[in-house]
Amino acid sequence: MLHLDSDYIRGGHPEVMNRLLEVSLEAVPEGYGEDAYTKRARKLILDACGLSEEGDVRFMVGGTLTNATMIDVLLHPCEGVIAAETSHINVHEAGAIEAFGHKVLTIPASYGKLSAKDIDEYLGKFYEDKTWPHMVIPGMVYISQPTELGTLYTLAELEAISRKCSLHNIRLYVDGARLAYALASPENNVTLPDLARLCDAFYIGGTKCGALFGEAVVIPHPEKISHLFTQIKRHGALFAKGWLIALQFEVLFSNGLYQEIGDLGNRYAGLIKEIMKTCGYRQYVDSPTNQQFFILPNRIVDSIKKRVSFSVWEKVGKRQSIVRFVTDWASNIDGIKDLLLFR
Amino acid sequence: MLHLDSDYIRGGHPEVMNRLLEVSLEAVPEGYGEDAYTKRARKLILDACGLSEEGDVRFMVGGTLTNATMIDVLLHPCEGVIAAETSHINVHEAGAIEAFGHKVLTIPASYGKLSAKDIDEYLGKFYEDKTWPHMVIPGMVYISQPTELGTLYTLAELEAISRKCSLHNIRLYVDGARLAYALASPENNVTLPDLARLCDAFYIGGTKCGALFGEAVVIPHPEKISHLFTQIKRHGALFAKGWLIALQFEVLFSNGLYQEIGDLGNRYAGLIKEIMKTCGYRQYVDSPTNQQFFILPNRIVDSIKKRVSFSVWEKVGKRQSIVRFVTDWASNIDGIKDLLLFR
Amino acid sequence: MLHLDSDYIRGGHPEVMNRLLEVSLEAVPEGYGEDAYTKRARKLILDACGLSEEGDVRFMVGGTLTNATMIDVLLHPCEGVIAAETSHINVHEAGAIEAFGHKVLTIPASYGKLSAKDIDEYLGKFYEDKTWPHMVIPGMVYISQPTELGTLYTLAELEAISRKCSLHNIRLYVDGARLAYALASPENNVTLPDLARLCDAFYIGGTKCGALFGEAVVIPHPEKISHLFTQIKRHGALFAKGWLIALQFEVLFSNGLYQEIGDLGNRYAGLIKEIMKTCGYRQYVDSPTNQQFFILPNRIVDSIKKRVSFSVWEKVGKRQSIVRFVTDWASNIDGIKDLLLFR
Amino acid sequence: MLHLDSDYIRGGHPEVMNRLLEVSLEAVPEGYGEDAYTKRARKLILDACGLSEEGDVRFMVGGTLTNATMIDVLLHPCEGVIAAETSHINVHEAGAIEAFGHKVLTIPASYGKLSAKDIDEYLGKFYEDKTWPHMVIPGMVYISQPTELGTLYTLAELEAISRKCSLHNIRLYVDGARLAYALASPENNVTLPDLARLCDAFYIGGTKCGALFGEAVVIPHPEKISHLFTQIKRHGALFAKGWLIALQFEVLFSNGLYQEIGDLGNRYAGLIKEIMKTCGYRQYVDSPTNQQFFILPNRIVDSIKKRVSFSVWEKVGKRQSIVRFVTDWASNIDGIKDLLLFR
Repeated sequence: MLHLDSDYIRGGHPEVMNRLLEVSLEAVPEGYGEDAYTKRARKLILDACGLSEEGDVRFMVGGTLTNATMIDVLLHPCEGVIAAETSHINVHEAGAIEAFGHKVLTIPASYGKLSAKDIDEYLGKFYEDKTWPHMVIPGMVYISQPTELGTLYTLAELEAISRKCSLHNIRLYVDGARLAYALASPENNVTLPDLARLCDAFYIGGTKCGALFGEAVVIPHPEKISHLFTQIKRHGALFAKGWLIALQFEVLFSNGLYQEIGDLGNRYAGLIKEIMKTCGYRQYVDSPTNQQFFILPNRIVDSIKKRVSFSVWEKVGKRQSIVRFVTDWASNIDGIKDLLLFR
Repeated sequence: MLHLDSDYIRGGHPEVMNRLLEVSLEAVPEGYGEDAYTKRARKLILDACGLSEEGDVRFMVGGTLTNATMIDVLLHPCEGVIAAETSHINVHEAGAIEAFGHKVLTIPASYGKLSAKDIDEYLGKFYEDKTWPHMVIPGMVYISQPTELGTLYTLAELEAISRKCSLHNIRLYVDGARLAYALASPENNVTLPDLARLCDAFYIGGTKCGALFGEAVVIPHPEKISHLFTQIKRHGALFAKGWLIALQFEVLFSNGLYQEIGDLGNRYAGLIKEIMKTCGYRQYVDSPTNQQFFILPNRIVDSIKKRVSFSVWEKVGKRQSIVRFVTDWASNIDGIKDLLLFR
Repeated sequence: MLHLDSDYIRGGHPEVMNRLLEVSLEAVPEGYGEDAYTKRARKLILDACGLSEEGDVRFMVGGTLTNATMIDVLLHPCEGVIAAETSHINVHEAGAIEAFGHKVLTIPASYGKLSAKDIDEYLGKFYEDKTWPHMVIPGMVYISQPTELGTLYTLAELEAISRKCSLHNIRLYVDGARLAYALASPENNVTLPDLARLCDAFYIGGTKCGALFGEAVVIPHPEKISHLFTQIKRHGALFAKGWLIALQFEVLFSNGLYQEIGDLGNRYAGLIKEIMKTCGYRQYVDSPTNQQFFILPNRIVDSIKKRVSFSVWEKVGKRQSIVRFVTDWASNIDGIKDLLLFR
Repeated sequence: MLHLDSDYIRGGHPEVMNRLLEVSLEAVPEGYGEDAYTKRARKLILDACGLSEEGDVRFMVGGTLTNATMIDVLLHPCEGVIAAETSHINVHEAGAIEAFGHKVLTIPASYGKLSAKDIDEYLGKFYEDKTWPHMVIPGMVYISQPTELGTLYTLAELEAISRKCSLHNIRLYVDGARLAYALASPENNVTLPDLARLCDAFYIGGTKCGALFGEAVVIPHPEKISHLFTQIKRHGALFAKGWLIALQFEVLFSNGLYQEIGDLGNRYAGLIKEIMKTCGYRQYVDSPTNQQFFILPNRIVDSIKKRVSFSVWEKVGKRQSIVRFVTDWASNIDGIKDLLLFR
């Protein structure tokens, strides 16, 4: 059976696991991110982002907890967050953002992406309405790179969004749960230093990109945030054995492993794209990363299901479905080639 | 250097690590606790607790997140939680309980422990005051086993507390961050089936008891809780790769490993207790588990600090301090014996 | 100057004021709604709603506080509320619903109204998506009668919505900030007993309908709610001098005054509608209640502004605007007739 | 029957009522505090407080809502508020402070009062504990003037507390629900300008001091608060007909009425004190304001109850009770003299 369900179906990359095993018996007396491993991983990531020691990196567990924590940290209590209608925080986080009192202010997205123009219009219209002080004040734009549909923001697009955010004095936050696949995509031109330059915070996903678990939040200007440590604790997002996550990121950010993991996932996904197109199936969206969406007749869906596990994204009328294939660094290449059988 | 700072200074027990390594490359397509590993670990734990398949076990990461989630899940929005003034949720969780709107209603504790009598008096007095509908309604008693001071509730004490809770129709929740050390203590007479019978929920700590990370929440009557899965997600406490934690608990609950880990920690702690008493130092509290508290002259504190890392719990006047030594299954026995030098 | 800005521009109806004056010096020793005035007003309202003594009525101050309180009271913490995109709770309550952790789940509205069909589709689609436990669970439908645009739900429409709510086991809540104008409209066929029969809660607005201030929340089945009094207090919505509001509702619900007040507002609004149509202006929406929306050329807007104060609802292109005229029981009839000058 | 239950048993002072009646039919087109009445009342109060136009005054309804709103507005999300164990926010607000995520950090009080020394010790100890970043950070001191027991802070005491707050960079907030009685007490030496100089915010209670309803929050440095209007709305504390409250304060702050009301209440209370002492009963606390606390034998309590309504504060053993008598500007002087019968 070939598993293309998601990119969190596996533990960690072997190099990550070996390192965890190595350090596991060592005593690391400093908890909560005060240890040498955390310092080293922070330094590595700051360097990769072109940030000096004045930037900060915090390690957390899980996308929803990371998003809920950072969005709350970066917003004023009466500010909300602008996001795509289809965004993870609007749909699939069970109200974790609202649980801390923040409204998600939705804008329709095109293939998972927000445009600087739409954001600008939203903000312009908001302040034009003289009743705005009775409304939730937009305080942030949330986007993900890659998006929920595997698409990418170009550097020009990201810069345009960042400019609008600066102009309106609101923050920009990037959810990088699958950032490895963005960074490794040949179509990508947004680097880590770009993200660090253009965002108020973003996270580098580990869970879906080769780590056993854990995400690294990059905060270029921590001096703007008060009580960061305590806020993380208050959200239950402070990991006692902080070094466990740091250690993994140290491995991922040494010798280009994070990039390599992203590249492998993208290649397998590219192979799927090629095969499906050869088979004559229509893409739902053209994704240059590790998620591929195709519109298939239901009988083909049923027959692929016999050999491949994957998710049906949405029904299209009575006879077709949009399906999603997700790869990672260890997807079975032979299994993928077998997809050729299903035409 | 001997490290007696805490019991979260190490990764996982070698058996846990080996199992994680083994499964790490396997694909587990079902996320969020729907997989076979989770089912198996749940069954193992339910069996150990004398619960049928009708009970439930949920795997989460970190004590604060687990407490904040379960306390919110078990309380009505206008209920608060009765806890010791010195309890972890009242002191060291940065307001995570209040962040979800619940007040911590404190009662003075004796050596970290609440008494059934004090709880009863609190509740009696509460309902006697005819202005009670203007107050936060007590909805739960929170205790920990062992307590923050390493002490244990006896079965009789726990039963008495449980009876008072039933009488007043409020819930009982036990924080078992260090439960292994309680279960393995020769002085303990509270078993897992006792906890399952007497509590509305409790958690079996993994992070401080041999797991790499993770805790197992036991819920004897899940039918009383609505939307449990969604509530966990809303708190950011739903772990995508749920099987990672389940797997560790499977190991811990096979062949008595959890008990053995607790026992090792307790033995090392016992050795420390013996040595310190031999040296003539006074216990701050008599703990039968892996945390030992002694009152030492500051100059002794300083000289031990040269060879041992540990925390100073509290100053006592100008010349003495209460110190805390914490052991785990891998504390260095030779190092511990060296403590004999400090008399 | 004629003021058609809103229906909260005046104090109370003279009968209400006189009664307040009368009772003002009397001592009412029971606070928080335990007094005889409150009991009497509750009885009057329950009777008007065809409810027995088993129903409940609570008096609060202000629409936003009332909505935020009752929506929180009626929802499970991980439930959200379905509402029109244009609804007051979604737009003009500054996130008061989210401040208590509930997401507003929006559906596009037609002339301010939701349809049973749209609600049904939303709910059907929700549960069809097998990832729904990761999402905010719809727990209530919020509508207002009349709507933000002055339109009315017919009895058939309300019954259809109520049926869908029952079918999906979610609650129905009606915001009646301007209910007097609905009840008094000749086009209306939804009575108070209908609302009591079809909703889980609704409020009878006083602030905009002749009271000095205050709203009466009707709860047909209070036995389904626990800790109602304490929840109201926790929201800051418990009014110490509760009888002050009750007293006003006693007046409003005696001798048909509430109905009469609604009728007067509607008549003045009807006159405006007639005049504007005579002048050849186009309605934005056909409202049978005390709010009238017209699309006017901007130069007409400017010239009316010289004699009438009102709000510009929205710009329409560069040369026209949607304007809103709001009347109440004391709108100046002569002033209204002067509008005839502006053609 | 003489009613000494509380000071919210009556409507408004006749002068307040007459003014409300006068303005009631007038149209005030600007809602939400933007009208001329509000501007005038704000000016009057700012003048009385020795503040320039740079200070701000906001009108709200009810003590709990006002406290919950202002405490949230003045605190960082991970800050808590230091208050007396017996304080209103800790005991009688049903968790309204916690509902917005803030912990109440209690200090034992002496006769309802906190001391600068205790506050200083609390803060000193807090920051000495190196685990403090895991704790709720104290961000404010909450006191009330007069206290729940009718006692008063002296200017020296208030200045000492204010100094400690400045020193530790935390805010000071004064709950003035009964401020009129403090201001009018011959024993008082804390003026409105003192409060404005020493606090970050305080409120001048109307509900218990002659207004029909409403409180005036004084904010000497509004420039330190962002989005104040929206925050008030988000809490449901923005009153649409804002001028209704302003109008009342205009009356209360003209011709010394607020002071006079306080003075009358204090005089009646003084009479009760004198009588009770003459009768040989023991004071529970020596209060110079409108609340008097006495320890009475239960049989005297029962016999007074036949002619006077009042509340029993607390039982003292089996045979005595602490009772509370509360007066206002309209307490019946003849009835009070009748108390002489009960010796």
